[in-house]
Amino acid sequence: MGSFFRSNIDAMTGYIPGEQPKPGSKIIKLNSNENPYSPSPAVEKVLQNFDWKRLRRYSDPFANEFRNAVGEVLDVPPDWIIVGNGSDEVLNLVIRACAEPGRKVVYPMPTYVLYRTLASMQPAEVIEIPYPEDYRLPVEEIIRADGAITFIATPNSPSGHVVPLKDLRSLATNLSGVLVVDEAYVDFTTEDALSIVKEFDNVISIRTLSKGYSLAGIRLGFGIANPKLLTGLYKIKDSYNIDAIACAVGAAAILDRAYKNACIEKITTSREKLASEFRELSFRVWDSQTNFLLVQPPRDNAEDIYLKLKAQGILIRYFKQPGLKNKLRITVGTDEQNQELIASLMPLV
Amino acid sequence: MGSFFRSNIDAMTGYIPGEQPKPGSKIIKLNSNENPYSPSPAVEKVLQNFDWKRLRRYSDPFANEFRNAVGEVLDVPPDWIIVGNGSDEVLNLVIRACAEPGRKVVYPMPTYVLYRTLASMQPAEVIEIPYPEDYRLPVEEIIRADGAITFIATPNSPSGHVVPLKDLRSLATNLSGVLVVDEAYVDFTTEDALSIVKEFDNVISIRTLSKGYSLAGIRLGFGIANPKLLTGLYKIKDSYNIDAIACAVGAAAILDRAYKNACIEKITTSREKLASEFRELSFRVWDSQTNFLLVQPPRDNAEDIYLKLKAQGILIRYFKQPGLKNKLRITVGTDEQNQELIASLMPLV
Repeated sequence: MGSFFRSNIDAMTGYIPGEQPKPGSKIIKLNSNENPYSPSPAVEKVLQNFDWKRLRRYSDPFANEFRNAVGEVLDVPPDWIIVGNGSDEVLNLVIRACAEPGRKVVYPMPTYVLYRTLASMQPAEVIEIPYPEDYRLPVEEIIRADGAITFIATPNSPSGHVVPLKDLRSLATNLSGVLVVDEAYVDFTTEDALSIVKEFDNVISIRTLSKGYSLAGIRLGFGIANPKLLTGLYKIKDSYNIDAIACAVGAAAILDRAYKNACIEKITTSREKLASEFRELSFRVWDSQTNFLLVQPPRDNAEDIYLKLKAQGILIRYFKQPGLKNKLRITVGTDEQNQELIASLMPLV
Repeated sequence: MGSFFRSNIDAMTGYIPGEQPKPGSKIIKLNSNENPYSPSPAVEKVLQNFDWKRLRRYSDPFANEFRNAVGEVLDVPPDWIIVGNGSDEVLNLVIRACAEPGRKVVYPMPTYVLYRTLASMQPAEVIEIPYPEDYRLPVEEIIRADGAITFIATPNSPSGHVVPLKDLRSLATNLSGVLVVDEAYVDFTTEDALSIVKEFDNVISIRTLSKGYSLAGIRLGFGIANPKLLTGLYKIKDSYNIDAIACAVGAAAILDRAYKNACIEKITTSREKLASEFRELSFRVWDSQTNFLLVQPPRDNAEDIYLKLKAQGILIRYFKQPGLKNKLRITVGTDEQNQELIASLMPLV
């Protein structure tokens, strides 16, 4: 059978997402950095009032209702925006437009594992540059590698740290290829890369409604870049990649900033509380500007903790990867969920 | 700027979909083979009852609610099914898994223009084999070309004809690569390729809810193939490609076969009526087993008719392509829309 596929596809393994329990099951799910609070109540209204008969028609290829809402909220012209079926689709578009054998894909490690999966589909040469333990970006090494694509996630997962703007600016100035600033967690921090996107025509910021806006189930992400950079991505995008309901739901949600900000505030307060509880249990805790924490147990038993919690119905994330084998990534839940986590953790430390 | 992209991406043009007027505009839209009737009323119920708070969680990577419904309707095990964000996404998965420079993509022409667009993204070598005027499949030539992928749309667009099962069987037997049977319009005909899918491990049938089920706006398609063939496609698929609402809507719609069948019956009756009206106007009309007609005006003025109807608010499809320049593709609308079309057409013939 193998011979039906390209040899790189035979050789690769797919991306493995965090486990998804069935709706209604009683698991505490702190493994996929989902928002513990519901999306904006505006979403319910959209669903109640949606003209379902419209669905017989193809949806808008540009998802303009959503794109205009994004433009309004971020003060960006709509033609600087491309909408994807989740930010993963936008990452896919960049990979397909710019990566191939002989062109390099560069990123610091550890980071979002999908970059490697996507590069292996082309296949492109992958250059992974390790972060030091303090997660200071290895700017010079990344510039020397000079990728056709350079991926920088900021805030980064699983570390939770923010890459300083001056580092991004330095990359944008010195790289000859495209700089992808993956800002999936941007809603949890105060700094963002929009100023750099506006200044440099080789930079795209990629964002999602899955985290801050609590709409992981609707699949909406977007890229912001100079329209000249978007031209190549639009050639590859499926004509009708965004369904009509998602477009309307996303527009309503992103316009309800007050609701989103209130959720973010609750989550960041809970995060700091959870971080100090981990520290009391002698865990090492990295500073986070996201809705998750990277922690290192005092004994070298991260995988064991992950498995024992799972057996009790608490899902957290363990990555069997260099630099992460002794650490755990934990999504910030509601205060109640976080308390259950800490209580279940105590006997395991 | 060109240098950011791969050279084949710079060289290619994207797929150009049929024009989409804004919701509420008074255009008669007969250019994208949309269904003139609303989707099943079961869709409205799903939207009214959907638990919108669930959207904070990622959707099911396998879209099992929908996949199980498809399996039940078609009597196929769910693990023989892969769900896509429209059937275009499933076509994309096959291209990315199997096509690259040095591997051939083969299809008869004219057919769905997207195959060429997708092949140029890899880029793969494209072999286009012309259909004769009677649209008999050039089986021997296609077998000789022996693609890594062979695309056969049946019923085909824009011709509307069905490729006989014995031809598909002959291809499946003799090709060393993957045979994609694109059955987007299968709901309008009585024959399908399921028996061949079950028999041969190199065959995938690709279907959509956009046509017979009148859900173009929800973006749902699926592929049916031996699970061994699906393995390669699952490696490439975005983890969460189907949103939770589309999954629920699609499941309800596909289970309501009675409603779909009633729509199909109305459309095929209208199609035959419309075909005889075209014949009365001295058009050549090809037999169609779809929801559209390929017609050739008695004078060589197809493009002129297309433009004049467009100016009057009636959209039909004109392809500036070899073999199609003197023809028009017209979606079957409601009887009322079809009458308006014929009335507007009369002075132009």
